[in-house]
Amino acid sequence: MTGSLVIVGTGPGDPDLMTPATRRVLSCATDLVGYGPYLDRVAATPNGQVRHATDNRVELDRARHALRLASAGRHVAVVSGGDPGVFAMASAVFEAVESGEAHWRDLDIRVEPGVTAMLAAAAAAGAPLGGDFCAISLSDNLKSWATIERRLTAAAHGDFVIALYNPASKARPDGIRRAFDLLRTLKAAETVVVLVRNAGCDAERFVTTLAAADTPVVDMRTLVIIGASATRTIPRAADLPWVYTPRREPGAGS
Amino acid sequence: MTGSLVIVGTGPGDPDLMTPATRRVLSCATDLVGYGPYLDRVAATPNGQVRHATDNRVELDRARHALRLASAGRHVAVVSGGDPGVFAMASAVFEAVESGEAHWRDLDIRVEPGVTAMLAAAAAAGAPLGGDFCAISLSDNLKSWATIERRLTAAAHGDFVIALYNPASKARPDGIRRAFDLLRTLKAAETVVVLVRNAGCDAERFVTTLAAADTPVVDMRTLVIIGASATRTIPRAADLPWVYTPRREPGAGS
Repeated sequence: MTGSLVIVGTGPGDPDLMTPATRRVLSCATDLVGYGPYLDRVAATPNGQVRHATDNRVELDRARHALRLASAGRHVAVVSGGDPGVFAMASAVFEAVESGEAHWRDLDIRVEPGVTAMLAAAAAAGAPLGGDFCAISLSDNLKSWATIERRLTAAAHGDFVIALYNPASKARPDGIRRAFDLLRTLKAAETVVVLVRNAGCDAERFVTTLAAADTPVVDMRTLVIIGASATRTIPRAADLPWVYTPRREPGAGS
Repeated sequence: MTGSLVIVGTGPGDPDLMTPATRRVLSCATDLVGYGPYLDRVAATPNGQVRHATDNRVELDRARHALRLASAGRHVAVVSGGDPGVFAMASAVFEAVESGEAHWRDLDIRVEPGVTAMLAAAAAAGAPLGGDFCAISLSDNLKSWATIERRLTAAAHGDFVIALYNPASKARPDGIRRAFDLLRTLKAAETVVVLVRNAGCDAERFVTTLAAADTPVVDMRTLVIIGASATRTIPRAADLPWVYTPRREPGAGS
């Protein structure tokens, strides 16, 4: 009896942004393991699938539980939101594999890519990620604030577009304010900032500047995109401006 | 007669990685506009849809053509690979809007997110993008090599995982060699490097180190991922090692 473990992401929320490959994994699995609200996005199947809903703060335990189930011959889907490889469960599963039982390394493990939140947020705003960009999580207590400051500073020096995940976690509610404060010392005041709440499902957008960016509208479901120097807005008569970053730099070839 | 323009991405190649939302846009469009090989991925529809296949080097012309069709009342899908907002057509469309006819700003324009190549490449390798990461295109003549060096340097200083798109373009075939040479002066020799060719469709993987990374296997369909200092490999008996980046930094909280 050979089990399997596939780590999937449900996308940013809208079921039509979940890939058919992920949908197939979810409907064929005997066991779903994940944070409760993500499991709730998965439609019930007629095969009596077992759902192992867990709290959000026990990623390694959840990963080990999934690996034990797969070792016992079950076909397990570990369910994240977005893409499972971006600030989500895939990394936790491999950490559990590395530190766990030797035979776990030979299990049939696979990762299914998905649509991560920053892509849905960018699409709702226009094309702010049209140039080189980086993604930084402000989350939790997984890394020190010194590391986050180092990355924000490097991103500003490189003139990357910056996508911020988990901007206001419970453990670090003032993360986004501190990030804005730091970036205001490194980037131009008129830098375009986009806030997208609920990207991928009735997205709510705000377009502002780094000087004016405020934090009360930012919660854990908000994706924050801070432009590069080239990022621009296109005013429109009846809606918020489009935001985009040109691929071409001024002065570069044809 | 009100037209519309939706910019979509077909994902990394495997049709099962194209979202249902994108599939619906493609089947309802009256006109498809895009680079020939991407259009070839789209199944024919019974409604006599018109296909406007263009060369890869005329993005702005292609965008203007699509905008003119939408102005004339057509329902146009502009087709990219991957995600349309990442080194693809969405940015070109908004550039054409900004520099084009005033009424184009009021057209019904929408972007549908998709699975971009680095997510499929990462999934094939494990979870190398599990920490903070950045994406840099080495492509073409859209930006100067000085800008690329500045971004690679900043990415190394920030200890980001680095995903390189378009590592060996026709206009800049030696880009990836120069990028490896620069990064070897900035990052540890044992830094994990993953090369994934044809991510999302019969992916071919290579796992190596920055010291040993060689360029002959790299072509335009290769996605290159260069690890952060924390990026690790997990050896396996019967396959290439898994590669992952832990979310948690050594010494950080629970």
